[in-house]
Amino acid sequence: MRAVVALGGNALSPADGTGTVAEMRAALTATSERLADLVERGVELVISHGNGPQVGRILLQQEYAAEHVPPMPMDVCGAESQGQVGYLLVQALDSALRRRRLATRALCLVTQVVVDGRDPAFRRPTKPVGPSYPRPEAQRIAHETGHVFTIQPDKRWRRVVASPKPVRFVEEVPLLQVIEAGHVVVAAGGGGVPVVEHRRELRGVEAVVDKDLTAARLASLVHADVLLILTAVERVEVGFGTPKARALSRLTVTEARDLLAAGEFPAGSMGPKVEACVEFVSTGGPRAVIAGLADAVDAVFGDAGTTIVGDGADG
Amino acid sequence: MRAVVALGGNALSPADGTGTVAEMRAALTATSERLADLVERGVELVISHGNGPQVGRILLQQEYAAEHVPPMPMDVCGAESQGQVGYLLVQALDSALRRRRLATRALCLVTQVVVDGRDPAFRRPTKPVGPSYPRPEAQRIAHETGHVFTIQPDKRWRRVVASPKPVRFVEEVPLLQVIEAGHVVVAAGGGGVPVVEHRRELRGVEAVVDKDLTAARLASLVHADVLLILTAVERVEVGFGTPKARALSRLTVTEARDLLAAGEFPAGSMGPKVEACVEFVSTGGPRAVIAGLADAVDAVFGDAGTTIVGDGADG
Repeated sequence: MRAVVALGGNALSPADGTGTVAEMRAALTATSERLADLVERGVELVISHGNGPQVGRILLQQEYAAEHVPPMPMDVCGAESQGQVGYLLVQALDSALRRRRLATRALCLVTQVVVDGRDPAFRRPTKPVGPSYPRPEAQRIAHETGHVFTIQPDKRWRRVVASPKPVRFVEEVPLLQVIEAGHVVVAAGGGGVPVVEHRRELRGVEAVVDKDLTAARLASLVHADVLLILTAVERVEVGFGTPKARALSRLTVTEARDLLAAGEFPAGSMGPKVEACVEFVSTGGPRAVIAGLADAVDAVFGDAGTTIVGDGADG
Repeated sequence: MRAVVALGGNALSPADGTGTVAEMRAALTATSERLADLVERGVELVISHGNGPQVGRILLQQEYAAEHVPPMPMDVCGAESQGQVGYLLVQALDSALRRRRLATRALCLVTQVVVDGRDPAFRRPTKPVGPSYPRPEAQRIAHETGHVFTIQPDKRWRRVVASPKPVRFVEEVPLLQVIEAGHVVVAAGGGGVPVVEHRRELRGVEAVVDKDLTAARLASLVHADVLLILTAVERVEVGFGTPKARALSRLTVTEARDLLAAGEFPAGSMGPKVEACVEFVSTGGPRAVIAGLADAVDAVFGDAGTTIVGDGADG
């Protein structure tokens, strides 16, 4: 059994925290227990993770220091966040594996994801990154940097960047080799560092690839038996936030697509997760599950979360 | 032929620069041409690099933002710098390899280095990190954080941390696997993220392992034919800065040790490089060379730099 696990923000640090290393270590220690449960049951794991709050803090640090230290572009900040989260996650997971006297070990591969320079997403940036600002400050920064800002529900302004689709991984070959060798691999954190091919060369771009779509791409690459998207809720719901709300335990790809088209799942939240599941299953993946972090083992082996399967799959 | 190459600061960005990404990309593009020369000649490369200026800038960014974003400890900052430099280096090197139509590709492995918690270095921190301060500010920070500061030659104060010896790499097994598979591996940047073993667990420590000693350890691990320490000068000199200055082209381990003991090589500069060469050659390594970046190929195949060999080695 091979699983690609996409960890959401709640797996890396508490939503109401301030982003201290102690908070991150505590959250990652708890997360690692669930991941170690899977390793103990013989699951080969590839782990991807979000980086929104982490890269947001790096961007904020850059901004406060901008008069003294030249800020790095988004791609480099993404790579920094892969080092940061990857290191802490590998350490927490190795510790969990050692406590159980398991021989499997984890490693983190800095991962670049190739995107298409002609992806329509580049003409319409939608992904908010970094801190929010009152309008005058956003205008000043936009003027100085050329960054694009949009107004948020709270009337403040945030920078938005393109969110192009993941095409392939630059480090595909070594990634497969270390998985085949039996290691738990942390890869493509934050959706991977996005790069475009320009003639014979690769170049980083200021964009954010959706981490769940990247995980789906990763799951296809490694021929995973299951794509497991772990998040803060136990199941996908329809009628979310209404009296008619109903948790779903199983969806076919067609049902999932219909619900997506009907706008049942909010963009930037459950929407991309369901899309990622559809993407994996519709390109040959056997099964994708969206589940709560605590239910990781049941989501793989038993009955938990919302499972998305192909239209022809048996009940 | 297998070589471990330790890249000094000048290979990553210009000494007189301000640390912009454009400066880093330009320096890494030039460096990558020399590394690609080696790959083109069939050398299997493992690349390690310094991170002093890079982690210094991350520490400075953390400090300017400290009231708003909780600063991360040194080990996490080191991991961030591995992501940052590793990503940019892999990208520049892959581009250089692609331009020459070579099939070899590079990857960056986030690397932890185990140090001994009882290493005497922990009782006497010596390695300056981060920005320098006037005395009152250093005292305030020391009071708030418990960090240790020492006065520098310019009368300003800098934080110092321990510089323990590298013992082994946490990611040893996958590291060897990706090297054997023929990839160029960027590993143990900044000397590796230092961790200690505590009961069954690993824990990051606020320390900096000397990047040249780490490269020597890496060279022993992968049974390198040569440890190549690339730096800003073409050869090691005795009588450095005096009228009697004389460049050395070849030293035996015993000669190198004698010169180290005589204080010929400054600590924090040429001293650790010569020590790293002695360490590699005295533990069975065939040959170590300290050379200028431009002379990388000659240093491996011809006659450039200062070569350090075992006492019994043929002329």
